[in-house]
Amino acid sequence: MIPKSYAIIGSGAVGGLYGSMLARHGHSVHFLMRSDYEFVQQNGWTIESPWGDFQLPRVNAYSSAAELPPCDVTIVATKSTGNDALPELLRQSTSQGGVVLILQNGLGVEQQVAEFFDPQRIFGGCCFLCSNKVGPGHIKHLDFGRIVFGPLLTNAPSMETAQQICQQMSGAGIDVQASDDLNMVRWRKLMWNITFNGLSVALDASTDQLIHDPASLALSRDIITEVYQAARACGADIAEHWIEKTIDNTRNMVPYDSSMRLDFLAGRPMELDAILAKPIDVAKQAGAAMPKTEMLLQVLTYLQAAKG
Amino acid sequence: MIPKSYAIIGSGAVGGLYGSMLARHGHSVHFLMRSDYEFVQQNGWTIESPWGDFQLPRVNAYSSAAELPPCDVTIVATKSTGNDALPELLRQSTSQGGVVLILQNGLGVEQQVAEFFDPQRIFGGCCFLCSNKVGPGHIKHLDFGRIVFGPLLTNAPSMETAQQICQQMSGAGIDVQASDDLNMVRWRKLMWNITFNGLSVALDASTDQLIHDPASLALSRDIITEVYQAARACGADIAEHWIEKTIDNTRNMVPYDSSMRLDFLAGRPMELDAILAKPIDVAKQAGAAMPKTEMLLQVLTYLQAAKG
Repeated sequence: MIPKSYAIIGSGAVGGLYGSMLARHGHSVHFLMRSDYEFVQQNGWTIESPWGDFQLPRVNAYSSAAELPPCDVTIVATKSTGNDALPELLRQSTSQGGVVLILQNGLGVEQQVAEFFDPQRIFGGCCFLCSNKVGPGHIKHLDFGRIVFGPLLTNAPSMETAQQICQQMSGAGIDVQASDDLNMVRWRKLMWNITFNGLSVALDASTDQLIHDPASLALSRDIITEVYQAARACGADIAEHWIEKTIDNTRNMVPYDSSMRLDFLAGRPMELDAILAKPIDVAKQAGAAMPKTEMLLQVLTYLQAAKG
Repeated sequence: MIPKSYAIIGSGAVGGLYGSMLARHGHSVHFLMRSDYEFVQQNGWTIESPWGDFQLPRVNAYSSAAELPPCDVTIVATKSTGNDALPELLRQSTSQGGVVLILQNGLGVEQQVAEFFDPQRIFGGCCFLCSNKVGPGHIKHLDFGRIVFGPLLTNAPSMETAQQICQQMSGAGIDVQASDDLNMVRWRKLMWNITFNGLSVALDASTDQLIHDPASLALSRDIITEVYQAARACGADIAEHWIEKTIDNTRNMVPYDSSMRLDFLAGRPMELDAILAKPIDVAKQAGAAMPKTEMLLQVLTYLQAAKG
């Protein structure tokens, strides 16, 4: 299947960036939008990126999922906190057999979608990306940018589809890799997400503050190590040097407010279930304790209730 | 030895309250003071307490430890963060053979004093007390108030001395108990101190906020349990029901800003070594891991450096 059309569910810092890259290279891209719908309808996208700044004046924007055309690939780039609405959001754009590519943080989302959607057509991935929406229709992509994704069910046809999507995205200038080990991809991303999303809220700190103080660096390393050990217990074949690589990547990152910190500061719900609760739960079932990660979730749950 | 005179090193919310109670009942009490010296010299103490409000207009106040007279009992009620000065502070008031009673939070202070002072004459204790200094020479005692103390070296003469001090304090209206198990007394207090001093800073919360939110209550219980298990590993014979009793006591407490939170908010150093680092270290030597307590110390160390 060579994709001919894309629906983007959730046109924020992730969906807006990648969807605009695809549209800029001539692909048929359909953006489902909420708050920015009218603005983008009139003014299009403005993208600032180390891959090159550009404007996309004419955009296929929609304010309702029911208006989306059927597409070959539906990219889900919403926050996981709204996943209860996924059956409704996916219905129309996937109605003629297209696949779903879930670019969310956390664990277990593909399994959740598989409860109402053909698992053969589910793909998931992680974005190793520093990107913020800084205004209506305005994305500022700061650093990194790689998507690593793969099928929920690994078999020859699903890997072939992954390769074809990958090739087309890559041709649009996106840094992308297909993987046959989605579980590993998700856990490797969690090593960063749990640690730096979580601690940036718990300690009210940006990533560079966390990495430059000896106490928060030690705590970061402890949590990354807990996630690494949980990942191994859950069958994710991650090499041990990813512990230090996760720290080094963060040290070399531009100073960055994590998405969870931006959510918290803006009074939006944080992705605590997908990023923290689910991994802790899955690890526990595999016999791996994550006490510091569990404490981080307790702290964040308190902060969300107290300051939310 | 029936004590005839008391020196109070550190005349704050603890030393000011207990010293004033003793002086009010006619005992010879000598207060070493810092910032409040001139005020108390002129105006004396004002004590508000559930045990009865009172004023103590004439006070033996001193601004230098070298001016203190030799006393039978020297009570140390300073913050442990200043303990490097103890050899100097204790020299004069203990110069004719009196004993030292250390009423500080944390672990290991008696052992530290024993490095330069006759261990036969060292007593230590904990105050289960909500009390704040609210102005110059002005103590507001809010709730509880019991001192539990005992000798560093348990033998018949030292227990007899403890009983005599206890009797005299009790006669002055102080709620006080002598114990022959200082290690147990200290660890039992740590179950409260580590948890509620620490979390009140880490979560920017008063004790009643911590106890009424389900997530912070669960975290409090986890940390109390860690301290309980560490205490048992360190030979402190604490009954398991103290876990819930520590929570119940806090639930029934007046809403209270812990001393550590007051220190943090005022930009003073927190008692991290005595209250957290030392117990973690001692527990580790006894084979007990305290991961959430360790994370709490990491968080507090970060906050002290970042906001200090």
